[in-house]
Amino acid sequence: MSDSPVAVRLTEVGPRDGLQNEPETIPTAAKIAFVNALSRTGVEEIEVSSFVSPKWVPQLADAEEVFRGIERVPGVTYCALVPNEKGLERALAAGAEKIHVFTAATETFSRKNTNASVRESLARLRPVVRRAREERLPVRGYVSTAFHCPYEGFVDPERVLPVVEELGAMGVEEISLADTDGRASPPRVRALLDRVLARVPPERVNLHLHDTYGLAIANALVAWAEYGIRSFDASAGGLGGCPFAPGAAGNVATEDLIHALRACGAEVAADPARVVAALQTVIPHLKRPVASRLSRALARGCGPAPTDPAF
Amino acid sequence: MSDSPVAVRLTEVGPRDGLQNEPETIPTAAKIAFVNALSRTGVEEIEVSSFVSPKWVPQLADAEEVFRGIERVPGVTYCALVPNEKGLERALAAGAEKIHVFTAATETFSRKNTNASVRESLARLRPVVRRAREERLPVRGYVSTAFHCPYEGFVDPERVLPVVEELGAMGVEEISLADTDGRASPPRVRALLDRVLARVPPERVNLHLHDTYGLAIANALVAWAEYGIRSFDASAGGLGGCPFAPGAAGNVATEDLIHALRACGAEVAADPARVVAALQTVIPHLKRPVASRLSRALARGCGPAPTDPAF
Repeated sequence: MSDSPVAVRLTEVGPRDGLQNEPETIPTAAKIAFVNALSRTGVEEIEVSSFVSPKWVPQLADAEEVFRGIERVPGVTYCALVPNEKGLERALAAGAEKIHVFTAATETFSRKNTNASVRESLARLRPVVRRAREERLPVRGYVSTAFHCPYEGFVDPERVLPVVEELGAMGVEEISLADTDGRASPPRVRALLDRVLARVPPERVNLHLHDTYGLAIANALVAWAEYGIRSFDASAGGLGGCPFAPGAAGNVATEDLIHALRACGAEVAADPARVVAALQTVIPHLKRPVASRLSRALARGCGPAPTDPAF
Repeated sequence: MSDSPVAVRLTEVGPRDGLQNEPETIPTAAKIAFVNALSRTGVEEIEVSSFVSPKWVPQLADAEEVFRGIERVPGVTYCALVPNEKGLERALAAGAEKIHVFTAATETFSRKNTNASVRESLARLRPVVRRAREERLPVRGYVSTAFHCPYEGFVDPERVLPVVEELGAMGVEEISLADTDGRASPPRVRALLDRVLARVPPERVNLHLHDTYGLAIANALVAWAEYGIRSFDASAGGLGGCPFAPGAAGNVATEDLIHALRACGAEVAADPARVVAALQTVIPHLKRPVASRLSRALARGCGPAPTDPAF
């Protein structure tokens, strides 16, 4: 990992956020192969699975098996999403190395996603964060619908701040601002980061961007170049979607984000061609085309773009 | 058309640049239906076809028929690409209302694309531009490989300037800087526009961006927000590619560019949902999925994003 001020850390969320909404059941062996291949791409963190109830997300009912099956590569952090204390216990038993918890900026989404108000969901997270910290695991707190809510529309940044502050007060190491349905834009990114970074330093802020309308790359570049954000979620091939955000597309594609950041002078350790190669472990099970630009360019016989010699 | 300083003019190049590289022959009737549907989307200009030799681009051998078959909507400018005087005479006879001529910033691409050096291609264009102006037709001069050449790599902006100046001296109204293989990036856009806009005012500059690596939207936003560029090419559905730029993807998708520009506060007359609808005239003939984000979002049952109330 580089200490350079332009170095970016990536959290590959393909195995969890990428797969959770897939209608086809992905075999556990394919998920394990996916994580193992991703472990060798150079990404810093992998969100391996989620310890939510299999009733809610049947695709990820095999979280324990996946954690048990993967080969851990030194230097890679294997993360798990957990909704509550029960999920945390499962994650701890499975050997998760970092915990992702989540709430939302808007009440309607919070109720649909967690069956709780924002305040209730924060109360539910408090003992989770405490216990994870007792176990010396770092915790990242996600704020869903931080830019726009599929039910309530655009979200005033002022509504996001108390949620960020509450998560910070609990002791989470990182805050992730999530563009759940892909409606963020450069002006919306600026408006939110202007306010959040007045309270939280940029090295503690992650962005989780979906690419429903094609603005995810532009949003990431604004956050990186203008605000010093150095941590991004992304999914190989742009896999993903959200069961509670109708129509939302996948996460920003890891390989395209790497290309974009490097083209602007960022240092990114992960190798985009390896990310596309890792994707092949799950592609046969998806039954739909992959949306990333680089995966298409490679399929057309175009090489991965070499780094701009200007940097 | 708005006189607002944030209003953008779009040239829809789907029927020409979008279709020219398609391996399947598109029936003339489908092309005519495509142009007619695009005429009702609100785009300001449509590049209808190209009067190049059918030997070189067999897909566009029906340029005369397409021009004859379309219904012209007042307020829309119907453009034609022409390579030489013979092509211009055909375009004039067909009733083209604006002429697009092209050269390149790099020698290798120029030779592959036009079988002439850059200097020779400029000499070939001089009488074309003169004659078009005698006919009182506006002319736009394209500089291919203005950012990167598939054969020569990244292009020093200093190499682009003499080509821009030569085109200007011929009397073209507009210069289009073309990212032929989609390797431009925000820093490359800034480096080129810093120099070009020292010589040509922004209202005379158009950007023609391909989306091979997913940076086209970010590049367009930088040009719009930071440099006052108000004219962009785009193709419905992101159709396109270049026969002489191996692996290059299509143009930036019109509907995604409209969403991105509006999300940043630009005024764009064209309706993105109508652009996606217009695309249906040619989709059955393409035999491949369409790459645009908005067309996918609509297919998933997601509505076109309403304008951000912040603007």
